[in-house]
Amino acid sequence: MPTSKDPSFAAIIPEGDNRLRQVCTDCGFVAYENPKVVVGAVVTLGEKILLCRRAINPRKGFWTLPAGFMELHESAETGAAREALEEANAKIEIEALLAAYTIPRLSQVQLIYRARLIDPAISAGVESLEVGLFDYADIPWDELAFPSVNWALTQFASVRHLSVFPAFGNPPGETGDHHP
Amino acid sequence: MPTSKDPSFAAIIPEGDNRLRQVCTDCGFVAYENPKVVVGAVVTLGEKILLCRRAINPRKGFWTLPAGFMELHESAETGAAREALEEANAKIEIEALLAAYTIPRLSQVQLIYRARLIDPAISAGVESLEVGLFDYADIPWDELAFPSVNWALTQFASVRHLSVFPAFGNPPGETGDHHP
Repeated sequence: MPTSKDPSFAAIIPEGDNRLRQVCTDCGFVAYENPKVVVGAVVTLGEKILLCRRAINPRKGFWTLPAGFMELHESAETGAAREALEEANAKIEIEALLAAYTIPRLSQVQLIYRARLIDPAISAGVESLEVGLFDYADIPWDELAFPSVNWALTQFASVRHLSVFPAFGNPPGETGDHHP
Repeated sequence: MPTSKDPSFAAIIPEGDNRLRQVCTDCGFVAYENPKVVVGAVVTLGEKILLCRRAINPRKGFWTLPAGFMELHESAETGAAREALEEANAKIEIEALLAAYTIPRLSQVQLIYRARLIDPAISAGVESLEVGLFDYADIPWDELAFPSVNWALTQFASVRHLSVFPAFGNPPGETGDHHP
């Protein structure tokens, strides 16, 4: 965090804590490092599913769900809708939480919602090379950007015709890392 | 973040972004500020529910669910189990995601799981004054620490005898702030 004073940090276990943290030796400020939240959605128009081809790294050129880092002072649902607008100029309505994943290596929590496209007009935002509406059978499985995109699409398909379903977590044994 | 060099930050919109961020004018490092993740659980032993009376502020002396900030490189489920162990010396088994809440004012995402106590021996951890197992009718509703504790307990009660249920979000119109 930027401060007006030069911080002088050391690894210390704060009182009442049980882990080493970066603590300012001048003022006692503890610089906690926290997992980050990604919010996104499986967006449908009828039977078709919205995907975006990434214009940025990591995994530039690969297909993904509209998703990105949650901002301060927004709700997770609002953030998922914002990302769909930014990446695909897609206006969506959030329906339900599909899944809460964790990628421990990246210290990342992903909240993926099920949503409906409320206006069929979509186009690539600055972070997308192109966007498209895919039938499930036509999803480019070998060109998906991240394992969790595969999880979300697969899990979504298993409940897409149910109005009530439990939220998913990581598939058993999966950590979100690319398989070799 | 502590660095070996004194950072010199200014509020700048980074290339490809659309918001002001704190950017180091020396090296271009962007100090993104992110929402924080709280993980916790509604833990049951038969019909009884585990609550902890807070030994720390905010809301010292009030009752809460075992919950706390998710750490780096753990899964959300592991974090929820860790918090139950730390705050109530409670060994639990996570069953399902109960709810994903957002508190926009605090930029906080809360992932609350349904869980089962697998050993009836519980006791107060350092952040708890006392811990207890409550029948639903005996929950101290007027002494709950946070609105989201009330939400989780109420929503849990509505699905506790269902093995399959959709995850909840914030109750309609609720933001997680204390009502006047």
